[in-house]
Amino acid sequence: MTTDRYPSRHQAEASITERKDPVAYRNPDFSEGPLTKADEDFYDENGYLLFENLFEPDEIKAMIRELKQTMERNQDRDSVEVIKEPESNDIRTVFEIHKDSGFFESLAQNDRIVQAAQQLLGSEVYITQSRINFKPGFKGKEFYWHSDFETWHVEDGMPDMRAVSCSIVLTDNYEFNGPLMLVPGSQKWYISCPGETPKENYKSSLQKQESGVPDNDSMSWLVDKAGGSIDRATGPAGSVLFFDCNTMHGSSGNISPYARSNVFFVFNSIENKLTHPFSGQSPRPEFLANRENVQPITPKPEKLTDIPSTTTSKTKTKS
Amino acid sequence: MTTDRYPSRHQAEASITERKDPVAYRNPDFSEGPLTKADEDFYDENGYLLFENLFEPDEIKAMIRELKQTMERNQDRDSVEVIKEPESNDIRTVFEIHKDSGFFESLAQNDRIVQAAQQLLGSEVYITQSRINFKPGFKGKEFYWHSDFETWHVEDGMPDMRAVSCSIVLTDNYEFNGPLMLVPGSQKWYISCPGETPKENYKSSLQKQESGVPDNDSMSWLVDKAGGSIDRATGPAGSVLFFDCNTMHGSSGNISPYARSNVFFVFNSIENKLTHPFSGQSPRPEFLANRENVQPITPKPEKLTDIPSTTTSKTKTKS
Repeated sequence: MTTDRYPSRHQAEASITERKDPVAYRNPDFSEGPLTKADEDFYDENGYLLFENLFEPDEIKAMIRELKQTMERNQDRDSVEVIKEPESNDIRTVFEIHKDSGFFESLAQNDRIVQAAQQLLGSEVYITQSRINFKPGFKGKEFYWHSDFETWHVEDGMPDMRAVSCSIVLTDNYEFNGPLMLVPGSQKWYISCPGETPKENYKSSLQKQESGVPDNDSMSWLVDKAGGSIDRATGPAGSVLFFDCNTMHGSSGNISPYARSNVFFVFNSIENKLTHPFSGQSPRPEFLANRENVQPITPKPEKLTDIPSTTTSKTKTKS
Repeated sequence: MTTDRYPSRHQAEASITERKDPVAYRNPDFSEGPLTKADEDFYDENGYLLFENLFEPDEIKAMIRELKQTMERNQDRDSVEVIKEPESNDIRTVFEIHKDSGFFESLAQNDRIVQAAQQLLGSEVYITQSRINFKPGFKGKEFYWHSDFETWHVEDGMPDMRAVSCSIVLTDNYEFNGPLMLVPGSQKWYISCPGETPKENYKSSLQKQESGVPDNDSMSWLVDKAGGSIDRATGPAGSVLFFDCNTMHGSSGNISPYARSNVFFVFNSIENKLTHPFSGQSPRPEFLANRENVQPITPKPEKLTDIPSTTTSKTKTKS
């Protein structure tokens, strides 16, 4: 039985404790990759890192094309992996895209992002969750503040803070179309959330999170610690954001005409594989938290335009 | 019977027509005030104008104090003039504050804002609506896109586009706490909205607008016309925004810890008094659209710190 180093949802009151793990792991055996020492320092301090030029313009075009095609293939598919907007039939999220036996499976192994993840986590890595997100124009809903780690720890049994999210934004992100907002430095603190985890919580929490929500006092405290600032991940299509599993983040709704979409991979250290959920409940399904036959990724040096377009895919044939 | 120069909510389909009235009226008889020629040109082109230094720091402090006191006096008052957040008891809006027989009544006559309104509208002015708005932190709801004029014309019988809103923001407005968003140049076009106006529409529309909502195609067209840009009224507490009655505006929700509040006066030209609503329905109540005993305001040169604090007010004693 693994010790619960980050208890949450056990008490009626919230609490704030210091992080017990490194942020940037700085293992000299995994120093090869696109990140400079200054990048690692920034990540250590702030909990995130934004690259505008990790991919070439023609590679970004290829990603946009594949994202669009995947969305279309999934529009009318009724599956747990496909999450719709509350009150409409619009797709919000498609999970497990790193297993599409096609374009995104290759992208998930691309050396630029895998080696960046290895640099940050100081070990070999695997993907614990992947998805494409689509926030439509005019009516994109907000995502309230949350630490991913809090959920992954309590509901998935991720032992330590040694995972990084990689978000490749495939639409221009402006201040006015609901960009991801991050609280700089928040990764250094663990907000233990009040309350308990309802059974099969994921079925509703993917549309609107009710458990694992930080309380207002803790949020104010974190933002105060950040000098009152909240950063926004704005930038042109193709920008790549890495952010720590415990960085507090969220986003406002999007009433602008501009949709937002992104590809999202969560890299976890191979030394941080999922155990039994610390809530004591059953693990969430595999599409949300990979735990079966997990193998480290071998980084693949490849130009994305060399990957063939996905025509049929696992995602497609399952429908 | 006044001719309806801006029909809306008469058809199943939306339509876009050109504005039939000036934006900046530029009447030499009303050229005295804080606006330069360049200010008027900017307003003419964009439909809004932001001042960071119209009031002194000690005057801004006085406004914040009075706003806070007014909020407190109205917290538990059950009145049509006090609008609560959907799903909570938190105050969102208090109307009619220019009739508080106290601080805000004096502020509404202050020469700096009244003369700015006279410059823009080229005539004497009166207040057709006033309010203080309060958007709490963490859970401030969005206001979807709308042209105020569309509602004021259809539901209040405002004949022409000759009114200007003056919003004095009393909290720091950041990119991340749901600032007012405006579509530059949108004031030049009239979006006729589809559908009809339900009876007593204001009772629900003040919480969530369902009628008079621009369609997605028209919104996309307006934003394209603006070169794809949407501006945000960010700035320090005390910033004053003037915007035309037909400028398309809205705001996202506010999940940041920072509340937003502002004082809001709508100045209408004395030559543009309300007639019968163009919907054919009964006029909305006086607290939303002043039409009784309307008199032009005499601009009052006054430092706001010279106005006594409001202790009891009309707003208070009515409860």
